[in-house]
Amino acid sequence: MTDRPNVLWIMADQLRFDYLSCYGHPHLHTPHIDALAARGVRFSNAYVQSPVCGPSRMSAYTGRYMRSHGSTWNGMPLRVGEPTLGDHLREAGARAVLVGKTHMRADLEGMAWLGIDPDSEIGVRRAECGFEPFERDDGLHPDSARQGWSAYDDYLVSHGFESDNPWEDFANSGLDADGELMSAWLLKNSRLAANVPEEHSETAYMTNRAMDFMESAAEDGRPWLCHLSYIKPHWPYIVPAPYHDMYDERHIVDPVRSVAERGDEHPLLGAYRNGRVCQTFARDEVRKHVIPAYMGLIKQLDDNLGRLFAWMDEKGLSENTIIAFASDHGDYMGDHWMGEKDFYHEMAVKVPMILADPRPEADPSRGSTCDALVEMIDLAPTFMTALGAEAKPHVIEGRDLTPILHGAGNINRRYAISEYDYHWSEMAEALGVAQEDARTTMIFDGRWKYVRCEGFDPILFDLESDPQELVDLGRSDARDHVAVRARMDAALLKWATQHHTRITATPDVLAGQKLAAEEGILIGFWDEAEFEAHTGFAFSDLTPKGRP
Amino acid sequence: MTDRPNVLWIMADQLRFDYLSCYGHPHLHTPHIDALAARGVRFSNAYVQSPVCGPSRMSAYTGRYMRSHGSTWNGMPLRVGEPTLGDHLREAGARAVLVGKTHMRADLEGMAWLGIDPDSEIGVRRAECGFEPFERDDGLHPDSARQGWSAYDDYLVSHGFESDNPWEDFANSGLDADGELMSAWLLKNSRLAANVPEEHSETAYMTNRAMDFMESAAEDGRPWLCHLSYIKPHWPYIVPAPYHDMYDERHIVDPVRSVAERGDEHPLLGAYRNGRVCQTFARDEVRKHVIPAYMGLIKQLDDNLGRLFAWMDEKGLSENTIIAFASDHGDYMGDHWMGEKDFYHEMAVKVPMILADPRPEADPSRGSTCDALVEMIDLAPTFMTALGAEAKPHVIEGRDLTPILHGAGNINRRYAISEYDYHWSEMAEALGVAQEDARTTMIFDGRWKYVRCEGFDPILFDLESDPQELVDLGRSDARDHVAVRARMDAALLKWATQHHTRITATPDVLAGQKLAAEEGILIGFWDEAEFEAHTGFAFSDLTPKGRP
Repeated sequence: MTDRPNVLWIMADQLRFDYLSCYGHPHLHTPHIDALAARGVRFSNAYVQSPVCGPSRMSAYTGRYMRSHGSTWNGMPLRVGEPTLGDHLREAGARAVLVGKTHMRADLEGMAWLGIDPDSEIGVRRAECGFEPFERDDGLHPDSARQGWSAYDDYLVSHGFESDNPWEDFANSGLDADGELMSAWLLKNSRLAANVPEEHSETAYMTNRAMDFMESAAEDGRPWLCHLSYIKPHWPYIVPAPYHDMYDERHIVDPVRSVAERGDEHPLLGAYRNGRVCQTFARDEVRKHVIPAYMGLIKQLDDNLGRLFAWMDEKGLSENTIIAFASDHGDYMGDHWMGEKDFYHEMAVKVPMILADPRPEADPSRGSTCDALVEMIDLAPTFMTALGAEAKPHVIEGRDLTPILHGAGNINRRYAISEYDYHWSEMAEALGVAQEDARTTMIFDGRWKYVRCEGFDPILFDLESDPQELVDLGRSDARDHVAVRARMDAALLKWATQHHTRITATPDVLAGQKLAAEEGILIGFWDEAEFEAHTGFAFSDLTPKGRP
Repeated sequence: MTDRPNVLWIMADQLRFDYLSCYGHPHLHTPHIDALAARGVRFSNAYVQSPVCGPSRMSAYTGRYMRSHGSTWNGMPLRVGEPTLGDHLREAGARAVLVGKTHMRADLEGMAWLGIDPDSEIGVRRAECGFEPFERDDGLHPDSARQGWSAYDDYLVSHGFESDNPWEDFANSGLDADGELMSAWLLKNSRLAANVPEEHSETAYMTNRAMDFMESAAEDGRPWLCHLSYIKPHWPYIVPAPYHDMYDERHIVDPVRSVAERGDEHPLLGAYRNGRVCQTFARDEVRKHVIPAYMGLIKQLDDNLGRLFAWMDEKGLSENTIIAFASDHGDYMGDHWMGEKDFYHEMAVKVPMILADPRPEADPSRGSTCDALVEMIDLAPTFMTALGAEAKPHVIEGRDLTPILHGAGNINRRYAISEYDYHWSEMAEALGVAQEDARTTMIFDGRWKYVRCEGFDPILFDLESDPQELVDLGRSDARDHVAVRARMDAALLKWATQHHTRITATPDVLAGQKLAAEEGILIGFWDEAEFEAHTGFAFSDLTPKGRP
């Protein structure tokens, strides 16, 4: 154990903020995550920087907005020169270790161009957003295609689950009444039990891998951040027994939607809803099959976290490990007649976020709820502070949440921002939007949620009068709404023109950049007298630098 | 000679657009530059992306706006992962070679973090904005401090100009009537002849070095771009005989300024004008001493270019070398009661730009003037086309000017944009502006020049009714002006939210990013029938990827 805490940063994938009991779900009880909240701070207004895996994660791993890191879509490499949380922690002598998913693809072109061997230690880290992948050959392989052969496939085979595609045949399929394999890629099969015992499921496997890491880290001695990044409850939606039939129609919360939403709707929302995936999730039969499986996956995750936390208690790790829990974005699940997560309604862009710091400094905040506007990019600087890394305000765009954790202050963020690049989508095709224009930006002040849509009218929701976000005021002529939209455009312009690539000069360096006469930059002096009057020393006293 | 042309890219430093006879100066005759214009295209509306050396050059060398490359001030390293013109040309088998100034400082931190040795071939290039420095040990040393010992100092010593600080004592000083050395750091000495024969001056030296490079390149055989980057007519303002007394008060054009400019002026302009340098250059005696020297430096540059072009003719290089001439920004020279160049009036932000392509394709445009709005960042893609490099629209933000050169089209740029970071300045200190807010952005549509000033009112000039930019309409209540400002803010917002860091995915890669069922991403299919109806093939025909 070092004098610095460790950090266990747990990420769930596609977990809505409101599908946890501590966030108010009436039927889904998640006692272990709730207990984490009870010993930490639960953030009730945490927003991701893009409502889709890849860019949201790249923001999380860099502490920077999507407009800054530039990895705007899944599988779009984070540029090789982009600084990451891992880089900052390593500078402070700490490790940043990955157990699970990052959704990163390596910037092989960038590496080639800088002469970096992708198989070198630096190359491997760059290929994993700056993380050191845990047991690269045995753990999740950083180069595995999403549907390709993974270490988990090896694991399944080694435990007797023999197949040419074990993940698909065991983890992602169920058996029908005739014992036929039914794939969970088809939603009608969501309520079957996955064809794998729970203890060999992906979630259990990843939990075990985190334990393996923590055991190995004890020998190493350096403080660490472990990013335990679960693939679930992301689709495919199927869960092993007994979780597959814990929930049924009685536990499904009514969809958030109104008939009036469809009709004179914004072209982008209309095009999204007309896409196949939204059409599917708007159907009641789909919700009835998928939501119970989704709930089961979350319940299973909670139980595995319970197992992990108990193990950490037993190993004496809990007392010195800050635990963070978050999700990379939500899931519409039919709300607003939508599926997936590619827009900014609360269930898509707002995520659960819990931070539990075992140290006495955090006692004042224990069990509290923080309603401040926070962003996913705030985690990186918070972890940097915990692990003793230097603050990097010229690089990191998030805010350090430590004052909140220590009951010593708040952050006064006026706006949360999220961005989305839809160049790839059916929606772009349907609307004939060019690659370079297929973007939206959300800015939210805690009441007004404004979405700038390049080439289209904006979208505006008033969460005070319309907490369910059913009424788009983006084209309203009401004076209030016009004024709010103007204010939001001005705030966006201020944000968008901020220095966000000025990453090679620290505030101290910037402060030192005066054109000082002492340094031989002598602009605009007429004569010796003027020089001396201004500088306080004689021109003849200037020392030439001379030969090296 | 290869089948591709070479490119000689000449850059002057701090050369105003209107101090050349082909741009209309009544007394300063620059026949060699004029002749270049006569065999090429002269751009009458060329704008730099920042009115100061460092960031303007980093934009030139990357083809990207300042907001994108992030090197916002002199000496602020271009981040190690930022792609440059040199990188793109090397991919096409061409060389990008530096002879002269880049104002680059190496991103040593970035290199360390990626394991790049600054002394390696890649490290050296990264330290020079992607250029291969010509004769690194003998030419201008990439690591030399601005006032430090340079290769030119060595050159002076080797030619008998012995001193502990030869640049200062010979190139930058004159002799008074008593034979005393008088430094040109003091403006009162500007009209003395520099204490060095013209043929050993910095400008002549750099010209010779370009010839040395071209001779050596013939043996190499690869096509090349040579960036011949002169330090002059940048301060210190002093020039060798006979140029030191070619011009006098009779040749000084009246200053562009009005008494009304001072008074109820914009706080930023007021603070800038109250700074020492502007106070100095607003004085008539300063203009009377400095402008003749500045004109002499330009005349000397023109003569050296004449010498260079004649040599290239003689060596048979002219017929296969595209020649570009530009400047990194202008110089107020007392106009608008200002010195230096740190704002956006025409004499600061507009630069001369001439492109002469010897190939027959360019015959239609020869000797023409192009009034289109062009930007300094347009040169990089133009050179890339000339040298056969792949277009990189996901990286390069400038526009290829080849269609203009070949008389085959125009570019329809609606707005030219320039940015400025004044964190370092007296102005920021006087106004109490924080580092992160010390920025302005100019957007110009050919008539209206609008400057967004973070934390202050905007500035607006109407160049149609007020071509001298004497009347700031930034706070005018006139309906027209209010509407123009709103339009400019909207255009800036569109520009600022553009993807400008999405540099790891080409348009082809982006176009391929569909969530295709064929690739195993199967979101939102209810059953086999739906799958087949949508994809055209049976779900059972999906081939698992299987083991590697």
